[in-house]
Amino acid sequence: MKLILASLSPRRREILEMLNINFQVVNSCVDEEKIQSKMLESTPTELVSALSRAKSQAVAFQLKDGFVLGADTVVVLDQKIYGKPANARSLREMLLAFSDRTHQVLTGVTITDASNSRCVSSVALTEVSFRRLEDYEIDWYEKHAKYRDKAGGYAIQEQAALFISSINGCYYNVVGLPVQETLNLLAQLDVNWKEFLLNG
Amino acid sequence: MKLILASLSPRRREILEMLNINFQVVNSCVDEEKIQSKMLESTPTELVSALSRAKSQAVAFQLKDGFVLGADTVVVLDQKIYGKPANARSLREMLLAFSDRTHQVLTGVTITDASNSRCVSSVALTEVSFRRLEDYEIDWYEKHAKYRDKAGGYAIQEQAALFISSINGCYYNVVGLPVQETLNLLAQLDVNWKEFLLNG
Repeated sequence: MKLILASLSPRRREILEMLNINFQVVNSCVDEEKIQSKMLESTPTELVSALSRAKSQAVAFQLKDGFVLGADTVVVLDQKIYGKPANARSLREMLLAFSDRTHQVLTGVTITDASNSRCVSSVALTEVSFRRLEDYEIDWYEKHAKYRDKAGGYAIQEQAALFISSINGCYYNVVGLPVQETLNLLAQLDVNWKEFLLNG
Repeated sequence: MKLILASLSPRRREILEMLNINFQVVNSCVDEEKIQSKMLESTPTELVSALSRAKSQAVAFQLKDGFVLGADTVVVLDQKIYGKPANARSLREMLLAFSDRTHQVLTGVTITDASNSRCVSSVALTEVSFRRLEDYEIDWYEKHAKYRDKAGGYAIQEQAALFISSINGCYYNVVGLPVQETLNLLAQLDVNWKEFLLNG
């Protein structure tokens, strides 16, 4: 049994490593922006589901067997999707929007059984509450944080933890890969997660 | 400004390091069991509050200045406190109790200003939901996990993440140090958390 992560995200890799799960990484090379531009009328849930499916299937298509895990995470507030901030101004707008509010983190997950192309998907939702941020805190964050490669401009497992008052749902979903959703999808494909454990 | 962590817990240290906070570690040498045995009639909230205060004050007493952070974490289900499992049987009882249920993780935090012995305390609560565990999963966990030094026998940031379906509250409280509670206590002592940042 092989698990293949169809993502170059270091954070998803770190979660699987923390869980002591045996996996390989294959980049999906999916053109995310192209898919997004075709889905402007879709809900965030439909979007992350479609993107995770596209990544998983693009890799599964190249393989004879193995279970291919694709995932896509977005940050949503008032039905608006917040992607990766392109510049400091965009980051500041995001942090001001999140300040003293609760937003949603959605991750779509798809697993495809490459041997028969059977594929299952699911979307996990976690609510993240930011406390009220002061201007000097936003200044400091803009100056010191690595925000450009992160949806919503923050990572809960880094210094932005100073801004987060509480979460409701799966913590690892916010990091980038919802653990229970992934186990449930494996079960739907009649696979026991223990098969992939390095210490199983 | 100096922050002193009155705890040898590697997990609390890791949280402060992740936040890029400058701190020193001084062990409090408080006899936790003695305090607990005197507080059998107290609520879990009173207990973690008292233990965090004891740790913070024991260290502050030895110092001329600095802000001394003490913390104590317990796991609570149906008003019962779950400590560190002494043996495999005790661990199995805990996991069976947690299975398919939501328990509470309480952390008491106290900060003492050693220069004037002013001291503020708070208790953070996070709910942690376990999915239903199968017998073979408990067998596997007992065999492979390092559970003896952990309240409730698990660490959310290790393989037990495979058992947790969701949390409600501060994630870092479950790891051992609630971040917002700590910042709020510093503010109550008129200290801005930025004073302790290595990249402030």
